[in-house]
Amino acid sequence: MAQVGFIGLGNMGGPMAINLLKAGHQVCVFDLNPEAVATLEASGATKATVVSDVCREADYVISMLPAGKHVRAVYTGDDGLINYLGKNTQVIDCSTIDAESAQFVGNKLAESGIAFVDAPVSGGVAGAAAGTLTFIVGGNKADFERAHVVLTNMGKNIFHAGDIGAGQVAKICNNMLLSILMAGTSEALQMGVDHGLDPKVLSEIMLNSSGRNWTLELYNPCPDVLENVPSSNGYKPGFMVDLMAKDLGLAMQSAQQTNSATPMGALAKNLYNLMQNQGKGSEDFSAIFKLYSEK
Amino acid sequence: MAQVGFIGLGNMGGPMAINLLKAGHQVCVFDLNPEAVATLEASGATKATVVSDVCREADYVISMLPAGKHVRAVYTGDDGLINYLGKNTQVIDCSTIDAESAQFVGNKLAESGIAFVDAPVSGGVAGAAAGTLTFIVGGNKADFERAHVVLTNMGKNIFHAGDIGAGQVAKICNNMLLSILMAGTSEALQMGVDHGLDPKVLSEIMLNSSGRNWTLELYNPCPDVLENVPSSNGYKPGFMVDLMAKDLGLAMQSAQQTNSATPMGALAKNLYNLMQNQGKGSEDFSAIFKLYSEK
Amino acid sequence: MAQVGFIGLGNMGGPMAINLLKAGHQVCVFDLNPEAVATLEASGATKATVVSDVCREADYVISMLPAGKHVRAVYTGDDGLINYLGKNTQVIDCSTIDAESAQFVGNKLAESGIAFVDAPVSGGVAGAAAGTLTFIVGGNKADFERAHVVLTNMGKNIFHAGDIGAGQVAKICNNMLLSILMAGTSEALQMGVDHGLDPKVLSEIMLNSSGRNWTLELYNPCPDVLENVPSSNGYKPGFMVDLMAKDLGLAMQSAQQTNSATPMGALAKNLYNLMQNQGKGSEDFSAIFKLYSEK
Amino acid sequence: MAQVGFIGLGNMGGPMAINLLKAGHQVCVFDLNPEAVATLEASGATKATVVSDVCREADYVISMLPAGKHVRAVYTGDDGLINYLGKNTQVIDCSTIDAESAQFVGNKLAESGIAFVDAPVSGGVAGAAAGTLTFIVGGNKADFERAHVVLTNMGKNIFHAGDIGAGQVAKICNNMLLSILMAGTSEALQMGVDHGLDPKVLSEIMLNSSGRNWTLELYNPCPDVLENVPSSNGYKPGFMVDLMAKDLGLAMQSAQQTNSATPMGALAKNLYNLMQNQGKGSEDFSAIFKLYSEK
Repeated sequence: MAQVGFIGLGNMGGPMAINLLKAGHQVCVFDLNPEAVATLEASGATKATVVSDVCREADYVISMLPAGKHVRAVYTGDDGLINYLGKNTQVIDCSTIDAESAQFVGNKLAESGIAFVDAPVSGGVAGAAAGTLTFIVGGNKADFERAHVVLTNMGKNIFHAGDIGAGQVAKICNNMLLSILMAGTSEALQMGVDHGLDPKVLSEIMLNSSGRNWTLELYNPCPDVLENVPSSNGYKPGFMVDLMAKDLGLAMQSAQQTNSATPMGALAKNLYNLMQNQGKGSEDFSAIFKLYSEK
Repeated sequence: MAQVGFIGLGNMGGPMAINLLKAGHQVCVFDLNPEAVATLEASGATKATVVSDVCREADYVISMLPAGKHVRAVYTGDDGLINYLGKNTQVIDCSTIDAESAQFVGNKLAESGIAFVDAPVSGGVAGAAAGTLTFIVGGNKADFERAHVVLTNMGKNIFHAGDIGAGQVAKICNNMLLSILMAGTSEALQMGVDHGLDPKVLSEIMLNSSGRNWTLELYNPCPDVLENVPSSNGYKPGFMVDLMAKDLGLAMQSAQQTNSATPMGALAKNLYNLMQNQGKGSEDFSAIFKLYSEK
Repeated sequence: MAQVGFIGLGNMGGPMAINLLKAGHQVCVFDLNPEAVATLEASGATKATVVSDVCREADYVISMLPAGKHVRAVYTGDDGLINYLGKNTQVIDCSTIDAESAQFVGNKLAESGIAFVDAPVSGGVAGAAAGTLTFIVGGNKADFERAHVVLTNMGKNIFHAGDIGAGQVAKICNNMLLSILMAGTSEALQMGVDHGLDPKVLSEIMLNSSGRNWTLELYNPCPDVLENVPSSNGYKPGFMVDLMAKDLGLAMQSAQQTNSATPMGALAKNLYNLMQNQGKGSEDFSAIFKLYSEK
Repeated sequence: MAQVGFIGLGNMGGPMAINLLKAGHQVCVFDLNPEAVATLEASGATKATVVSDVCREADYVISMLPAGKHVRAVYTGDDGLINYLGKNTQVIDCSTIDAESAQFVGNKLAESGIAFVDAPVSGGVAGAAAGTLTFIVGGNKADFERAHVVLTNMGKNIFHAGDIGAGQVAKICNNMLLSILMAGTSEALQMGVDHGLDPKVLSEIMLNSSGRNWTLELYNPCPDVLENVPSSNGYKPGFMVDLMAKDLGLAMQSAQQTNSATPMGALAKNLYNLMQNQGKGSEDFSAIFKLYSEK
């Protein structure tokens, strides 16, 4: 069993840390929110008084933070953990952040002889609680394998995307594509409905044809085609419009970094921005269907 | 076994008619191209001297024509087949045309007591030859079932989309969505490649995540990720850019008819038009990947 | 002074016909709406009992109809005016319709020896009343000059765009561009506002820079930058969203006809469709600004 | 006459500094390229051995640098000029950079009591040489007026956009709009040409209608409509595609900062990226016309 430092006990980080405790690891936690810390202590974690405490005798330091600037600050900012981490500790950053920040922090740590992988997750709050998250990992082969040991206690599918930063890139490519699938599926379904077709029938036909995709199969945006999906439950999230818009912002930053053309992704991003303008930021991202269907 | 009239013996219609002969039907064929007719005669078909001959004692008249105007002309134009068809004959139009024309012709025939279904296909020339086409059928339940009998000799999956015209609508919804999947998958893959990811690894990750879709799984647009797909064979079609552009034109017409919003579909259409402008109309539609990757 | 037949006395056609009467022409009018006819009779027009009456001894027959199908029906449909028009009469169709219909009707008439020009207008109801419309004319040089004589009684700027149908094409090119200017200006202004800039100052800067365009100068979509424009008057039209959406539909049809790529125009069209979905079809087309600004 | 420090003697900065010398100012210059420095010395400038030398007794320090990271490094990086600048010196940054960097640097300097304005330019290399640049200035009123004195020696139009950073925002709003005008005008013109219209005639009509805009009037993208524009000279720049793509990248960053929706701007950006992919990065930005016209 390992000694794990854990930073960031939000909706995702909290249940992830609990799963590590359940697996028998010793976990030392840090968060600015005392309630979140108290919950973890009640589950058996120890509490770090200052963030650098999480480094002490740690086999792993895992972080789950909101944005690149927080990850930069924690590890490589003034008095950052880079000054406290030992050579035997591996850093696993599970935050979804811009690839540039992941590369910057990861390479800085690597230069100091500290192993680093970026390991953004998908699967949402439910997956975090159930321990069924997907991790998409960037780092060298040895570091991936070392991280794998502990990631399996929090997730089910663990992919190795490539070098440092590749986890972030792969996740953001996937989520950009997901937004395109969702918008495209929505407009195809609504165009059929506008011509009098039954969305269940049309969905069934497209599922068995070349229009098949993850959203059509598991997350149909048209109400009452599938049970137990947000569209059949008033578009209660699920994965919020605001979160998709955030990920699409990261995708546009990634595209900018490499001067990649992403016309479809850029349009999907702006459709999600229009939804935010309409006050739908807290609805499930499949509510983009309403852009087309509400008349 | 049935008596079938067959109009339009092109790349698709020819092998379809041959499959009807193989199944034991008697087929009377018409085409303006004498070579196409000769090929069918050699396979056992009889030849109609004038198009109206195909109606004689026919249980079914099947047509496979390039565009709505041809279907309108053949059935409801001056001296159209509407004047020759008996009440016992069912018309099955397998052309991919605008829904408005399908509805116009179908309803005109129905008013004259002649059963009609629109039954556009997907599966391409290979599917036509192998008898594994998908048919998406519009018409009432009884007419669908009657058509089913003979369509099974030419195809594998036969869907009932709804009333007259619904076959065209469903097909065009599917193909519009397909174009979005292909463009979106291409730009997600290339953005990953631009960041140094291996397209095989990224494809594998997205296939196991929410970016999963038909193009990623069976028709990957990035060369050498999958074997035996056009992208790994110099983008030799397969399904040509020009045909996708045609279908997207029909989709835009359908959207226009019902004033449906289709921003993603409209952008995909225009990206395919830009490919045509670049002289890539005869390449496989997955060559849209080159818009992003050629630098 | 000329003898003029006038078909279609709606919001535009009515005041146009009145201006012809004011100029001293004799005008014989037809419309299905008896009130519209009565208004014109009160202004000195004679009433045609059946539509073909307008042809009698006419130097010009002018039509102002909603869509291509109406123009086709009136002139070349069953019992169309093509059967009644004399060789000395010139047909001037002022409707805004698809270029294909204009070409079809114009060429049919020309084959029968009847002069035709398409002459769509811009300038709206106010311009129709004031006699300050812009006419964009398609037809040969001689026909253009002949039409010019009578068009000057209804408008101020009269352009010769090219052959039959060219008036429609030029108008639709202009209006597609206009929609792009309006959407683009709206998003540039709102992005400035989002960063704390004063929209008046930003408008002034862009007017004196390379962002200058008709909408920024004369029809600013941001409220209270200009006086006496719809945006400063609750987006009361002016030129309705529904009408812009109609014109953009015609533009897409034109693009389809020639397989022209119009990605920006297609996106603008779909943004206007999204506005219609939001119930803003009757607002002025500059209300597209609200898509960006309402949060 | 003033003592001016000038950093960055590239294609733009070089001629700007020369115009200051011509106006009688004393100019101390710094650049990493010794040839650029030698040219300025030959025109009467003194040479700074290290960059901080430009601060000595300076009334103004003017910088013209490629990107935000350079401006951050020069002023607020390790050993940045913030440590050398006196309270009597005003900093005028003429670089076109992201608004966030301009605000960061400007506010840091302001906190140290050093006056700052951002003053990005438009007008290109020709305007820099002729002293006819447009400056769009962000900063407080007093600082704007102080900067105005020296900017008039390098430019003709000097606008006050708002507070620190507002110059960058206004410029980028304008250039985003410009890209939309150029793309939109190109597709409207080509659609007309595709229908047989003469681009000169269509341009003339739209110039006198609601499609009027700066590109149509002064920078027509269709060859041989206007003389002395890049399109009539093989698309020799002018303002390169690569520079427009850079500015659109900054626009997307600005939009991201405020979560502004910019669907038209995002599409224009991606069309410019597609041009870069086609190897047209060094052509004039009006060459986007060829995306539509080359077939």
